[in-house]
Amino acid sequence: MIHETIVLNKKRDVRLETYVLPCGNEFRFTEKRPAVLILPGGGYDFCSDREAEPIALAFNTKGYHAFVLRYSVGEHKTWPNPLNDYEAAMQQIKQRSTSWNIIDNNIGVIGFSAGGHLASAAATMSGEKPDAVMLGYAVTLEQAAKAMDASFPGTVEKINRGTPPVFVFASRNDPVVPIENQLAFITKLNDFHLQYEAHVYAYANHGFSLATEEMIGKNNPDICSRTPAWFDDAVTWLDDVFSGKSQAHRVSAYHDAYDPYLSVNHSLHHVLNNDEARALLSSYSDKETAFPVPGRYPLLKAMQFIGMSVEDIRSLDKGLNKIKNI
Amino acid sequence: MIHETIVLNKKRDVRLETYVLPCGNEFRFTEKRPAVLILPGGGYDFCSDREAEPIALAFNTKGYHAFVLRYSVGEHKTWPNPLNDYEAAMQQIKQRSTSWNIIDNNIGVIGFSAGGHLASAAATMSGEKPDAVMLGYAVTLEQAAKAMDASFPGTVEKINRGTPPVFVFASRNDPVVPIENQLAFITKLNDFHLQYEAHVYAYANHGFSLATEEMIGKNNPDICSRTPAWFDDAVTWLDDVFSGKSQAHRVSAYHDAYDPYLSVNHSLHHVLNNDEARALLSSYSDKETAFPVPGRYPLLKAMQFIGMSVEDIRSLDKGLNKIKNI
Amino acid sequence: MIHETIVLNKKRDVRLETYVLPCGNEFRFTEKRPAVLILPGGGYDFCSDREAEPIALAFNTKGYHAFVLRYSVGEHKTWPNPLNDYEAAMQQIKQRSTSWNIIDNNIGVIGFSAGGHLASAAATMSGEKPDAVMLGYAVTLEQAAKAMDASFPGTVEKINRGTPPVFVFASRNDPVVPIENQLAFITKLNDFHLQYEAHVYAYANHGFSLATEEMIGKNNPDICSRTPAWFDDAVTWLDDVFSGKSQAHRVSAYHDAYDPYLSVNHSLHHVLNNDEARALLSSYSDKETAFPVPGRYPLLKAMQFIGMSVEDIRSLDKGLNKIKNI
Amino acid sequence: MIHETIVLNKKRDVRLETYVLPCGNEFRFTEKRPAVLILPGGGYDFCSDREAEPIALAFNTKGYHAFVLRYSVGEHKTWPNPLNDYEAAMQQIKQRSTSWNIIDNNIGVIGFSAGGHLASAAATMSGEKPDAVMLGYAVTLEQAAKAMDASFPGTVEKINRGTPPVFVFASRNDPVVPIENQLAFITKLNDFHLQYEAHVYAYANHGFSLATEEMIGKNNPDICSRTPAWFDDAVTWLDDVFSGKSQAHRVSAYHDAYDPYLSVNHSLHHVLNNDEARALLSSYSDKETAFPVPGRYPLLKAMQFIGMSVEDIRSLDKGLNKIKNI
Repeated sequence: MIHETIVLNKKRDVRLETYVLPCGNEFRFTEKRPAVLILPGGGYDFCSDREAEPIALAFNTKGYHAFVLRYSVGEHKTWPNPLNDYEAAMQQIKQRSTSWNIIDNNIGVIGFSAGGHLASAAATMSGEKPDAVMLGYAVTLEQAAKAMDASFPGTVEKINRGTPPVFVFASRNDPVVPIENQLAFITKLNDFHLQYEAHVYAYANHGFSLATEEMIGKNNPDICSRTPAWFDDAVTWLDDVFSGKSQAHRVSAYHDAYDPYLSVNHSLHHVLNNDEARALLSSYSDKETAFPVPGRYPLLKAMQFIGMSVEDIRSLDKGLNKIKNI
Repeated sequence: MIHETIVLNKKRDVRLETYVLPCGNEFRFTEKRPAVLILPGGGYDFCSDREAEPIALAFNTKGYHAFVLRYSVGEHKTWPNPLNDYEAAMQQIKQRSTSWNIIDNNIGVIGFSAGGHLASAAATMSGEKPDAVMLGYAVTLEQAAKAMDASFPGTVEKINRGTPPVFVFASRNDPVVPIENQLAFITKLNDFHLQYEAHVYAYANHGFSLATEEMIGKNNPDICSRTPAWFDDAVTWLDDVFSGKSQAHRVSAYHDAYDPYLSVNHSLHHVLNNDEARALLSSYSDKETAFPVPGRYPLLKAMQFIGMSVEDIRSLDKGLNKIKNI
Repeated sequence: MIHETIVLNKKRDVRLETYVLPCGNEFRFTEKRPAVLILPGGGYDFCSDREAEPIALAFNTKGYHAFVLRYSVGEHKTWPNPLNDYEAAMQQIKQRSTSWNIIDNNIGVIGFSAGGHLASAAATMSGEKPDAVMLGYAVTLEQAAKAMDASFPGTVEKINRGTPPVFVFASRNDPVVPIENQLAFITKLNDFHLQYEAHVYAYANHGFSLATEEMIGKNNPDICSRTPAWFDDAVTWLDDVFSGKSQAHRVSAYHDAYDPYLSVNHSLHHVLNNDEARALLSSYSDKETAFPVPGRYPLLKAMQFIGMSVEDIRSLDKGLNKIKNI
Repeated sequence: MIHETIVLNKKRDVRLETYVLPCGNEFRFTEKRPAVLILPGGGYDFCSDREAEPIALAFNTKGYHAFVLRYSVGEHKTWPNPLNDYEAAMQQIKQRSTSWNIIDNNIGVIGFSAGGHLASAAATMSGEKPDAVMLGYAVTLEQAAKAMDASFPGTVEKINRGTPPVFVFASRNDPVVPIENQLAFITKLNDFHLQYEAHVYAYANHGFSLATEEMIGKNNPDICSRTPAWFDDAVTWLDDVFSGKSQAHRVSAYHDAYDPYLSVNHSLHHVLNNDEARALLSSYSDKETAFPVPGRYPLLKAMQFIGMSVEDIRSLDKGLNKIKNI
């Protein structure tokens, strides 16, 4: 393991700690690895050790390179210092991705609490977007962000089409960062038809980190038993995103809203609303007006459902690709 | 096992199927058991076998009595027929709770899709409220409910202070029941400071039931790997609710909004806003203006945090109990 | 579910209780199902309810048909009454396998304690051999069998080449059925190069059944936390056996001992000991005397290791198939 | 993390690599930690990276300090060089246990393959015994040990009363280290009434390490699905041993064989065989000849079973403590 500390900004005490794993040789199934950049919480007053190395080691055991960023806090926390630190860290990682054996476009970011605010800003406001983002009991609402520092922006309103897939986990009764921060964030992601997964646990203290005995003590009655599952869930979700699986699972509403041309990924309802597309569809099937599936179903699934052949579906898709999505 | 079919309404073909387990004797740790009433989906056109017996048997293996309700569908689906069927089923179960060895106030309801609509109506509109409700890819929005039948009400707007704890699970890319149905439901529950847990999986087909190989086939690429966890999660959540744990984890906002008198369960912020309460608090501690914890923290936790003795906290609580919450 | 009781022997009160699941229709991935026959424990004095229906329901949730046999106990326990009951049950199941939608050659038997003795007898002494056997803290040694009744045979010595794959689970500190019963059984299975899997837990009371809270009470300190895993492990093992995977994983020693002709499944060492085979091998590779893998490695793996082509391996296998294994 | 390399023997290139975690401060539940010393496999020709750092990191995530020993291999492997290296490593760890925050008497050793041979030698032949030992597909039989080097001793015959608790995991069809190595070892441990837990998986290649995708590739059909569970099982087993739970679960046969004086931990059968003890027992209960529990049951459990009071059991135990165990 390459475990070293890289100073990114001496004046502001910004440091990147590496947990870089070996590849190749005896690890013959692993030429390169995905990576995750960890942004600990601490209310921008400090960077919590509880959300730093333990998270890095946990990702290591799943085969990920890991990095902990000690971003600007305390007297140096003025926005956009932390966001600039994040961007410097990402640039550092990308510059050295060859020597560290990092898979291109497989760099995720995870942030907790205030670090979750920074991660959500990275996902929405930065030019150095991560490929996936995981938010743990994150601050996202303007009101909550301002409570930490008047200069911190809310991130919900910054969500845009370029926001990468997001994994959200938090506790409903979080007394420090109200759960409204998560509900607002995922609702806005949903409005943009973006990809996300969300786990809101019935009860758990703020700052549970991995929710292991080491983090929360033995038999802590204030943390519900589902809570520790977030980590394994986040990793398989990240694997899905990095393997391209999540691309295949965009909702049809995304395509309806954003694609420049039609395809079989659009919703049945949307395609039937386009006269040219409707006519094309009729030439393949006379069932188009009586589909037993709801209009939000992707055309692809609807056609599979009524038994259209793979060849016909491909041909139909090519035809649709010539029709503008207006 | 008492596995029998009880006809609740012959004309509408409403039936209650029992999966009642033995208690006592060799099962010496189990004098009585909690129970769950299952409402399968099927768009109010039929009751799906996939969301009926398999769910009952799964709850049986967790030590729960289980019941499947075949409610009014097809020509008999006119509202409020299904809701009346639900109430008849609950009454039947409660009447026979002694002979079936059911624990009082430990009767949950789980519904899927259209059955989830019925379960959400049970939780919000019925006089026979369940003690907990689990909603699987449920229809809750007026628009979606009307799509099944003009007579079906949306249930989001029916949420009220008497709504029991709710467990929500669904897939973000559900093409049949849009995920907005779940986001709206939990947001409204949250507005009422009610208890819930929610799991929104990145992708899965509608109607995944237990998401086992039996239900979705082998290596189905359209169902993400987290999905099958909903069942075990729902059961431990239900155990929490029935053991009273969830009562202990109400958010302080609930107490701020609803309690007639103050207590240490109210938020620090709320108590400090009340002059009489603030004066009382000052007599116990001179730290009240400089708490290192956010205002949404329950007073109880804040006092524990600054090291107040158990006796003082109890005495403080008694004092607060005499102050009206206005 | 077809849940009924079939009387197999009225005089001895032998009964077969069915837990037969539906197939087809909405269960479109499931035309037929594997089945398991359950033999509860009870020292041949009774059949324990704790090792009967709960086991059946647990297998049901994994997609298996299940049957509980209430075999001859108490005054009727004289050997071979219980074994005859087992055989009658298997015949009944096989006769009705079409109407119950049971997959041919996918019928497993699981027995606990005394029922484990009966299951081990079924696997070694019966003409109605099951396709796989699971033994829970089973009596197998002659001394232990005699302690229940002078007429009961030990089953270790009855192990033979026709014994099906066996899954063994038990506790090291079992004070009722000494763990020696399991060690002797698996050692003898191993002597015959037969297939098995074994889990010996550090500590657990006798008769833990599923080791769930229902069975052992809450936070029982006498049952180690690994114990409940046996059930899921047994099911995936059974799936492996029924899918034919375990055939593929016979040890080469099995082939060395039993096959009438040589093949690439024999150990490298064994093949090199045969002059004709050694000569054949030399015509494919000049590396035969310097393999970097141990002699117990199957020839197939050794050849793959040195990079022999699939075609050459097939051709080599054909050549070996003509050489007698002597 | 203190991640450094300590050279123990420059000439033989013996190195101890540390993965020492922080304690205290933000890790407020953790003043000290247990530790594990890792002995990788490699046939005494090399130390495999696959069984080194990944194992250390995995133990780190469970809250353990971890150490990897690169012991004498290749030209330096002559026995007892590796055993001497092990002892030097243990001495180093114990000397620095205060500064590294290691819990006294909570140092386990895990070894794989040839490293498992070394671990089994540590547990049986060394004066620096570990507090617990985990053996992964370990070489233990004289014949197998000699196959690596004529100077290596078999360890089965070295098992003695001072051997610490052992956790064994391996695959039945291991073609490199035959499973007989494990069967012989646990059978001998059992003969000495020592504590162990054992998991023999139906099939898996030799050297599976953590059996994660990183170690065995994706969907490897040669490794059965139970295999990766060994790690979590080993950790909870180790937690049990270190918490003293396993002491409470010694089999009564251990006490019968080794204790100098009698106690209620001895088996009923053993106590009844001693005239003085039998007379003492009669003065407490007239049921001694008709216990409904087998003779191997500990007297303590038998007395609890018939309802003897806690006071009487304590008094009986004191009386027995004066009677020599002959």
